[in-house]
Amino acid sequence: MTTETLTLQYQSQIAAAIKNMQWPAEPAELYEPVRYIMSLGGKRMRPMLAVIGCGLFNGDIKKVLRPAIALEVFHNFTLVHDDLMDNALVRRGKATVHNRWDMPTAILSGDVMLVFAYELMMDADENKLRSAIELFNSTARGVCEGQQLDMAYEIAEEIDEARYTKMIGLKTAVLLAASLEMGALIAGATQQERKNIYECGYQLGIAFQIQDDLLDSYGEAKTFGKKIGGDILAGKKTYLAVKAFELADESTAKKLHHLFGRSTLSDDQRIMGVLDIYDRLGVKNVTETARNSSYSRGISLLNTVNGDLQHKEMLISLAESLVHRYA
Amino acid sequence: MTTETLTLQYQSQIAAAIKNMQWPAEPAELYEPVRYIMSLGGKRMRPMLAVIGCGLFNGDIKKVLRPAIALEVFHNFTLVHDDLMDNALVRRGKATVHNRWDMPTAILSGDVMLVFAYELMMDADENKLRSAIELFNSTARGVCEGQQLDMAYEIAEEIDEARYTKMIGLKTAVLLAASLEMGALIAGATQQERKNIYECGYQLGIAFQIQDDLLDSYGEAKTFGKKIGGDILAGKKTYLAVKAFELADESTAKKLHHLFGRSTLSDDQRIMGVLDIYDRLGVKNVTETARNSSYSRGISLLNTVNGDLQHKEMLISLAESLVHRYA
Repeated sequence: MTTETLTLQYQSQIAAAIKNMQWPAEPAELYEPVRYIMSLGGKRMRPMLAVIGCGLFNGDIKKVLRPAIALEVFHNFTLVHDDLMDNALVRRGKATVHNRWDMPTAILSGDVMLVFAYELMMDADENKLRSAIELFNSTARGVCEGQQLDMAYEIAEEIDEARYTKMIGLKTAVLLAASLEMGALIAGATQQERKNIYECGYQLGIAFQIQDDLLDSYGEAKTFGKKIGGDILAGKKTYLAVKAFELADESTAKKLHHLFGRSTLSDDQRIMGVLDIYDRLGVKNVTETARNSSYSRGISLLNTVNGDLQHKEMLISLAESLVHRYA
Repeated sequence: MTTETLTLQYQSQIAAAIKNMQWPAEPAELYEPVRYIMSLGGKRMRPMLAVIGCGLFNGDIKKVLRPAIALEVFHNFTLVHDDLMDNALVRRGKATVHNRWDMPTAILSGDVMLVFAYELMMDADENKLRSAIELFNSTARGVCEGQQLDMAYEIAEEIDEARYTKMIGLKTAVLLAASLEMGALIAGATQQERKNIYECGYQLGIAFQIQDDLLDSYGEAKTFGKKIGGDILAGKKTYLAVKAFELADESTAKKLHHLFGRSTLSDDQRIMGVLDIYDRLGVKNVTETARNSSYSRGISLLNTVNGDLQHKEMLISLAESLVHRYA
């Protein structure tokens, strides 16, 4: 089977597993938002990474499917709560849960999704259950810590690259890394193999998040599914913002503070003003370099792994598409 | 050792285990609210039930301590999120988390507490881990469903006793029942023993919640720690309200709707008006009878269990104090 065919097969297995999930019918107010957010789609990147991680070490794909879906359910739980905390109204081109329903619904449906993710994890084989849940626990905790840092950094005046990397590491990269490792774990990979594939996923995750930051400023609104400049208006600390402050002289930094801060300027003025400074400082180029460098580190780490070649190819192709995506 | 001495010893072991918990220092904004809510005290009823459940079946108390604390952490997670959803400002005489901090902090600190509860559950012995986490999962899901029903019933016009009992069963009784069962499970009790002690805990839990409802109308504000009549003002469906509507003639029911609904009346007028109707309908007495009947069912179930006599005595004494408490 070609790598493309196998990828399509995995995608359809993941889609079917999500579609066939038996969410309880009652109470409808609790589970309807869960069905809604899970049906909005998305790239299903985390389950795909888990499946690839399993295939890399010649594991049985059937055994990884439900834990893989657990990771996707967990990811969607974080979206429901994060969108509420950030007061984001649109996700994947549709109303967010708290926007379509209300705040209590978003909190509680999110909570039950987190529990449901643990229920899906129980499918792991007996001799792997403890390691699998321990990996899930530490990852979930890390993601909460990352979201906290993300919110704290919105208020903080200056964030350096090290703190930024720590934040996106926790908020984004650990879950992608853990997805790959979960597949490896379920396939019965050794501790060292698990560690290597985790590190590979972590670096690719950093590259992915930097690309996400780039898209917020340089993506196309139509394919991106969100408004361009959302991070700028929200005062989010993106890689671009961190680098812009690092490269700016005193007067430019002052101007950036004014543009990022709540001001009397219109949204468009703020976005255009920031993008103009990014252009003058060459921030896009610097950011692309950082993204490519994390990407290369991830691929080098993959090459140290003694895994199935077709699944290596599949991971490289997925990583490539994610890092050069437009949406 | 006398039962009283042993109870005090368990209480101090539980208090010490909670006090010595190593919450991470960073990010402080995430873990400070966790330390805060866990330090506010409370009756530590759930860990005590887990410890008693373990002792009943001659289990090793040391092995149940961390899972017992997991149940308390889980309970406190639900308090943080419920208080936010209900917009309750005071808990145990102190500011609730979202009141002292803010909405995002309450959401995220709650989330990390749920994950932390799972981390504590990992202390279960290898051959009990799966059953222990499965019990935890189904309980956690039930509690979410119960909170959803509780919120839905605030809006619903009429709730009958069956729906009320289902709601408090999920919201309160399943966690108390599961606490007892968790202890039994860790002690190595049989499926049948676990089932019996769960049912016993469930009935005691229903009695406990009915007493909670009674206290909201007939407790003393000073010892209760909350404002009397909070449930009335919030339009919560308590056992008293359910029975009042059941016993009321048409004009009294209309008056009750007016008093429970948002109106131009002052808070005191609404509370006094409802209490006056409760008195005329004999609601307090009917409620006490229902509470006593669940309590007796629980104690009868306990008597079917072939467990350690001193721990039976301890459980009866705890149940008795909870059902006749003033706070």
